[in-house]
This record gives sequence, C-alpha cells and structure tokens, in this order.
Amino acid sequence: MPSIERNIMREALLLAQKGRGRVSPNPLVGAVVVNDGKVVGRGYHHGAGKPHAEVNALSEAGYLAEGATMYVTLEPCLTWGRTPPCTEAIIKAGISRVLVATTDPNPSVSGKGIELLRNSGLQVELGLLDEEAKRMNESYIKFARTGLPFVTLKVAATIDGKIATGGGQSKWITEVEARDHVQSLRADADAILVGVGSILADDPSLTVRIGEGERKPRRIVLDSKLRTPLHAKVLDRNAPTAIATAVSSPKAVGNAEIWSLESSNSGRVSLDSLLRRAAQEGITSILVEGGAEVFSSFLNEDKVDKLILFVAPKIIGSGLDAFKGFAADGLNDAFQLDITDVRMVGTDILVIAYPKKSENSRGSIKCSRDWFRK
Amino acid sequence: MPSIERNIMREALLLAQKGRGRVSPNPLVGAVVVNDGKVVGRGYHHGAGKPHAEVNALSEAGYLAEGATMYVTLEPCLTWGRTPPCTEAIIKAGISRVLVATTDPNPSVSGKGIELLRNSGLQVELGLLDEEAKRMNESYIKFARTGLPFVTLKVAATIDGKIATGGGQSKWITEVEARDHVQSLRADADAILVGVGSILADDPSLTVRIGEGERKPRRIVLDSKLRTPLHAKVLDRNAPTAIATAVSSPKAVGNAEIWSLESSNSGRVSLDSLLRRAAQEGITSILVEGGAEVFSSFLNEDKVDKLILFVAPKIIGSGLDAFKGFAADGLNDAFQLDITDVRMVGTDILVIAYPKKSENSRGSIKCSRDWFRK
Repeated sequence: MPSIERNIMREALLLAQKGRGRVSPNPLVGAVVVNDGKVVGRGYHHGAGKPHAEVNALSEAGYLAEGATMYVTLEPCLTWGRTPPCTEAIIKAGISRVLVATTDPNPSVSGKGIELLRNSGLQVELGLLDEEAKRMNESYIKFARTGLPFVTLKVAATIDGKIATGGGQSKWITEVEARDHVQSLRADADAILVGVGSILADDPSLTVRIGEGERKPRRIVLDSKLRTPLHAKVLDRNAPTAIATAVSSPKAVGNAEIWSLESSNSGRVSLDSLLRRAAQEGITSILVEGGAEVFSSFLNEDKVDKLILFVAPKIIGSGLDAFKGFAADGLNDAFQLDITDVRMVGTDILVIAYPKKSENSRGSIKCSRDWFRK
Repeated sequence: MPSIERNIMREALLLAQKGRGRVSPNPLVGAVVVNDGKVVGRGYHHGAGKPHAEVNALSEAGYLAEGATMYVTLEPCLTWGRTPPCTEAIIKAGISRVLVATTDPNPSVSGKGIELLRNSGLQVELGLLDEEAKRMNESYIKFARTGLPFVTLKVAATIDGKIATGGGQSKWITEVEARDHVQSLRADADAILVGVGSILADDPSLTVRIGEGERKPRRIVLDSKLRTPLHAKVLDRNAPTAIATAVSSPKAVGNAEIWSLESSNSGRVSLDSLLRRAAQEGITSILVEGGAEVFSSFLNEDKVDKLILFVAPKIIGSGLDAFKGFAADGLNDAFQLDITDVRMVGTDILVIAYPKKSENSRGSIKCSRDWFRK
C-alpha cells in the first residue's frame, strides 16, 4: 500500500479520536474523501445520535464526492438507527472506491456493509491500519463481540510495586502529570470502579475534572457487605453511582442505585454477575482504580482486558502490594502480559499492557444490542 | 555551538565507547582531529598502559595535525604515567584549537591540562556534550572524586516488584535479551557482588560469558558469617573471587581471597568498610546483583549510585519483594530516583535511574591514587 494512502488513513484515525469521550456506546469513526489526489471532505462521529463520520465527510465534499475515494476507519453501517445507513449515503454520493481500516464486529454490520458496497459496484479494500483501528475501538469491539464491558485496570505504583506505604499512605504515589492523565482515562470510560476499601481509606469523589463535563462516567463501588458510609463523596450528586453488593437491599439509597448481585463462594460479589449487570446498564467500558484486593480479584477471575500502570520513580520497600491477593505458585503461573507502550508521563513511567491470551479465549459474538451505532 | 561541532564530538564519544570493558581503571576517551573541515585523525584509548586517545588521533593525522582542531571527550592529561602526557603531544603536533567535553576530576589533571594548553597559546573550549561525557565515565569520575567504587544495583523484577515467587523461583524472571544485556553490564564492571543468600539459593557462577574474556571482573560474596559452601561455583578458577566477611578468618580459601571487614551493629559486614577495601583492590565499579537483603542494605546505607532495573511483563502477586528489608515510613521517606532512560529490551522493560541527591552530598575530592590514567 503506498505511503500516501497510509497517511490519509492515519488522518482519518486522528479525526476519529476527536470524538473520544463522547461517542460511547458508539465507536470512534473518522472518514476522509479524496478526489483527484486532493482531500475534499473530512468527518468524524461527534456522538451518539449525531451523523456518522462518513456522512459528515460526504457533506463537506459535496458534488466532489462523485468518483472520489473514501478512507474510513470502520466498516460503514447499513441499517437505520437514529441516522440513515452510511452505505446508502456513500453509494448515492457516487463514491467509487472505499478503503476500510477494519470491519465492524457488531452483528448488524459484520462484513455486510462491505458486501453491500461491493455488490453496488464500488471497489472496496479492507485492512489498511487495521491494528490501529481495532485498538482505538477496543471497548466497542469487545462489547460487540461478547456483550460485556471492556475492563481496564489503572494502577499507580512505586517502582517496587507498592500502591501505599505500610501505614496506608497513597497520596500521592505519582506526580501531577500522571494524575492528569488519569482524568482523561476517566473521561473516556463509561464507568469507574473501586472497592469499598478505597472508599473507606481515601473517600475519593471519582469524578472527571477535565473537559466540558457533558459525560459523567458512572461510579461503581464494589461493596459486597454494603459498608459504604452515607457521607461518602461517591454518594454525592456530581455523577451517577451504583453500589454493587452481594446482600439484598433496597434498589436505591439517595442518589445511588444498589445493584444486588450474585455472590461467589467467598461471599463476594461475583464479577461475572457484575459485568453482566453493567452491560445491561449500557456500560461498555470500566476503569478499575483499586485497591489491591479488587485488582487481584479481577486477575484471579481473568476479567482484565488491559492494564495501565503508572510507575513512580521511588522505592518504598515494605508497603501494600498492588496485587496483594493474587499468588502465582511458579513463574509459569504468573499473569503474563504483552507490553504495547512504555513512555514517560512527567517523571513517572506509563506502561500499557494487555493480558497474553490465545485468540480462542476471546469469546464468540454474543451480542446484538439494538441500540448499537444509533 | 554549530551542530557540525556537536556531531564531531558525538563521534569522539562513540570512539571512546570502543574501549568499554577494557580501560578500567582508566577512563574511556575518544578524540577526533579536524583540519580544514575534514576529519584527518581518529583515536580512542584501548586500555590501561596503551597510548591515549589523543595520541592515537594525532598519529593518524600526521602532519595534517598542524593548525588543526582536536575534539576530545575528556581533558588531556599532563603528567607522565605509563605513557607521555597528552598535552605535550597536542602542543608538539601543532594543534591550534581544542574542544574538550568535560574536565578530568583526577587531581593530577583537574583543570590543569586545559590551563597548560591555554598557556601554550592554544584556543581551548570546554563543555560541548559535557553531560554525555560525564555519564560515560561515571565510575571513573566517582572514584576520582571520592576514592570509592561506583555502585550499580542490577535488579530483575516482575512488573509488581518481585524478584522471586513465594516458593523462591527466580529463574527466569526476565527473557534472554535482558539476560544478555546483563552480561554486557558484567563485562563493564570491575566487580560483581551478591549476598551469600543468592549463592545458597542459586549457586550462580557470576562470570562473563561474552567478549574475548580478557577482563574477568572480580566476584564478591557478601557473607558476614562465612556460610559460602566450598562447592560453590563462585569458588572455581574461572575468575578471581573475594568473600567479604565480618568474622576473622584466614586470608584465602582455595582460589578465593577472604576480606575480613568491620561489622555494623547488626553483625553484618559494614558497607563502608567493604567499599574502602574494594577501592584498595583497584575496584572502581561494582555491579550488585542481589538478593533482596543486599539491595536493601545498599539502599538503607545510601550506597547506591545507579539502579538498572529490568521489569518483566508478568504479575506474581505475593512473592519476594526486590527491596524486602527497606521500609519507608511515609512517601516522603521513599528512596527517590531520577529516571534517565526507559526502553524495551526484548519483551522486558529496562529502566535506568539514579538516586535523587543534592550535589552537596556527592562528597568532595578525596583521592589522588597515583596509578590513575597510567
């Protein structure tokens, strides 16, 4: 593939990113229309219910879309949702060639968008910057495939793996740049989850303090025995809150919903049941912020899709282990990761990693939620 | 400073690196001679007792050194050692301008080389790529300033800070690329140190398995109570070995020297006394390879000059802490680091860090060992 085409698709990916934090449960999508070597239209999806990227790019291109090539980061949809199908708009505008970065695993699309375009006589090429396009929509893709939210553990630890001193001090392990970065992770998630231990120890507000504040990610407290105190900041009205518990309880306490869920043998909330309930509530991604027991439960039950680790350049020695409660007997039983990115954020190191998994264990397509991409 | 001059000095730094692993206790030095915009001579120091970088570069330049500019990574020496002084050779060759990256802190030089060149009518400029030049010779510079060896902790840990599983398994935390990298660190050190616990647990040979094998770094076992078993691999004849102990003992056991050193209150070998003895033995740099207690002692007694950390992409959970035995009460008491480099080595992360220290605590010039730079 010529590098000029890669560059145009890269521009489409960058356009798509402009919707970050606003489009869920829809995917991020960007599109560029090129006629006779010139970019004549650019578009991205601004948010659920608003026009799709393809339509925005075509509308900018106007009559210049006739005979042009479209670069689009995700397979165009072909069904009516809250907006008309993109395939129809592309065909009507007279686009002659479409480059698609990756297919849309949503069962209502899933290759059928490409097929329809081809059957209508358009030349369609699939797979340019496929990996980047998939990663950008990893939450959307997991949810479309499994019907369950994408789970990211966000851990802030010292270089020796501690998330607090022996005395429990954890403010602040990392510096302000890393903490600002966490704000953008929160803004991008549908929900932020902590264990009740973190509520009791630190009383965090778990709100997003950046951006326009349009989206308010749900706050979820994993609280098997309903120990969250009524004065906890997560119970304020600054964002919706759910308390996930294993005891029977009224459906709401003040501002907070109570999710009474199945418990595991140990009397704790079953994470399977938690993730299913979150999915029912329209939550496609969860940022898990601690503490150690919660991190370990997600590892032990193999519910981790991504690990974002901030490593502070300090040594505490004896202190609270980030994964206290997880125990690999031998090195072969260790929780194995693939690191995809390592960089400095201020004076801290940011590591992005994914669990090493065989493709087979990813689960099959289970979901066809009808509010997808509407 | 024009970028062409930076590039030439960078070439001199790269030339200097060719001596790595061979020049100790001398510094790495590179030199480039430029006449009328053309490089006419290149040289580096090949090893103690051999000609210095400046002399090698001048000899390649021949009569083209007349009126030329020399780029040299360290201040030229001005005293007779095993080779004649470089200042004299530079003046005799007719060099008219000298760019020096950094001064030589060895008291026999320490600014006097530059002074002599200036007094002889040469134009001398100091400080181009000063930081890179200092870092390249960090062991030499510390030893020249303090009379004590430069101490590097080499730690191989999981991403959650463990150097072994709960059952003691540590082979192998990191992958082969990281382990190969450790070989080059060993080849570059004057001595490799481990605690007797590592000998008892893993029976390592602590030899260098790369390169021509000319230099055999000393193996030092920190063994307060002389528990090293006679069959231990470190006692073989593949490299010299010293057992550092706090009990009185004969001066040698087989191939190994015994260093009977002062003990601290806890009955352990005093690290002050260890470092002084190592310096007497001509050791300018020590690579400390473990285990956890040894790492923690060096942290507790503030004897760490550099930390090289390999981080494996796996989580063990409960296991052996890399710095078990170090305990910061609060985050303000944490051992603070400055990270200078983070990169991937194979699938592991390599972190290079230095203790955060005020310049005042670096110690003053104490040493004038007469075998310096001979």
